[in-house]
Amino acid sequence: MDEHSLEAFAQEKIAEGRKLFFRAAMEAPDEYMTDQERKLPQPPLCKAPMADNALDLPKDFSSLTIDSDFLHVINSRKSHRVYTDGSISLLQLSYLLWCTQGVKSVRGRAYATLRTVPGGGARHPFECYLAIRRVEGLESGLYHYLPMTHQLERIGNPDGMEDWIGRSLEGQRWAGKASVVFYYSCVFYRAEWRYGIWTHPTVLIDSGHVTENLYLAATSISLGGCAIAAVDGAEANRAFGLDGQEETIFYAMPVGTVRPEDEEKEDAFYAFVRQEGL
Amino acid sequence: MDEHSLEAFAQEKIAEGRKLFFRAAMEAPDEYMTDQERKLPQPPLCKAPMADNALDLPKDFSSLTIDSDFLHVINSRKSHRVYTDGSISLLQLSYLLWCTQGVKSVRGRAYATLRTVPGGGARHPFECYLAIRRVEGLESGLYHYLPMTHQLERIGNPDGMEDWIGRSLEGQRWAGKASVVFYYSCVFYRAEWRYGIWTHPTVLIDSGHVTENLYLAATSISLGGCAIAAVDGAEANRAFGLDGQEETIFYAMPVGTVRPEDEEKEDAFYAFVRQEGL
Repeated sequence: MDEHSLEAFAQEKIAEGRKLFFRAAMEAPDEYMTDQERKLPQPPLCKAPMADNALDLPKDFSSLTIDSDFLHVINSRKSHRVYTDGSISLLQLSYLLWCTQGVKSVRGRAYATLRTVPGGGARHPFECYLAIRRVEGLESGLYHYLPMTHQLERIGNPDGMEDWIGRSLEGQRWAGKASVVFYYSCVFYRAEWRYGIWTHPTVLIDSGHVTENLYLAATSISLGGCAIAAVDGAEANRAFGLDGQEETIFYAMPVGTVRPEDEEKEDAFYAFVRQEGL
Repeated sequence: MDEHSLEAFAQEKIAEGRKLFFRAAMEAPDEYMTDQERKLPQPPLCKAPMADNALDLPKDFSSLTIDSDFLHVINSRKSHRVYTDGSISLLQLSYLLWCTQGVKSVRGRAYATLRTVPGGGARHPFECYLAIRRVEGLESGLYHYLPMTHQLERIGNPDGMEDWIGRSLEGQRWAGKASVVFYYSCVFYRAEWRYGIWTHPTVLIDSGHVTENLYLAATSISLGGCAIAAVDGAEANRAFGLDGQEETIFYAMPVGTVRPEDEEKEDAFYAFVRQEGL
């Protein structure tokens, strides 16, 4: 592609991207109605279990050491890409799942889940999958979180988990050292039913609510992680058994055990800043 | 538009929206490079002051009453749309601004700001504007946050603030009762410089990190709010003096004083759930 066409390509794509921030750019004919407005049946609030091996997660967090200084949690949250070989406990994992997707109650008969995170119209179109390497009491493998019952189910086990994690995250091999990687999918119609053609930018914003809670909850129990948008959806969907049409993995976050001595190794990820004098 | 064309329109828009969740759908020619890769100069990390009246915000939060139970903050966060007539203190406002956009340090000479929220590549392309109605020690008006110096500057004063807030949020008049409304803009090139055509979905996710911190920080000091994607960008941009091309307001959150007695009024926002037997 010559330089002129390349420039035109970039300008067009960037103009398209910017439109996502302008609701006025998402116009619909007057007659357009969302499926909720058309009184079409509502889709399920959560995905049904995928296996037959659901495991109850502990829900009494009173024995966890949780940072009691909220501002300290906010101030000390940072991205961690270097993890030790430590395991995390099942209770810690349960706490992270609760803080990010836990269902506090159901509104109406089955209209909406009220969760530990906010989401537009309380649609909560996400499912949480896990690649577990080192969690006490759990076999290594791929899992799916069942938020209604606060359970985990085991749905697979890729060969060479550490390598697989790196591949699923576009080659970010450091993530393969995490104790657990959270993968978030979107089940599109769960939100589209209510928001129709206006669904997608808002759902992306909502996913940030979830990962921010994951960052903070991990920080509050002295774990570390780093959110990743560079996800190979096809690879992740294949492993978790998702169709990639109605549901796709699009966001991830490795979480692991960290220690202050690894600060220097963390800094190596930013060596280019010094090298290029930025 | 006939029913068939309407269906086709909806299907096309929904397919477009879903593409935002598939990185593989955002292909570029091999020769494509981002401006950072092309070594083009980096844009400023923050917007320059817009007025000449910057006011230092207090930064010693030790006198604030902050909920010391992190899990309680997570569990008690909810959307609040009913506010009392109370004011919030300047220290409370300062705390909310710090927890959502505060600059902890600068990486390199001027490569990136490290903030109290995570953001892809530490680009932090957002600016925070405020419509202030009831903050002790501040005149009502429109303000802009200066994160580098943790200051506020006053940039305008629309006639009839309460009505203006409702208009700027697509008629959501309840928001006009808030003590302060946070409006977030995106300065596109600040992130596009690094991420080029892949910028926009990720920046939307990043904005969710910011508002989630705002929800939690407000909850931690017993204030309430509700994030709003239904923003009239043109109206908000006009009032804050933004061009709507390189920078646009796209997300907002009113924050105010709340009390348990108003629970019933909050429930009225969900009356349709009961009425329709959902």
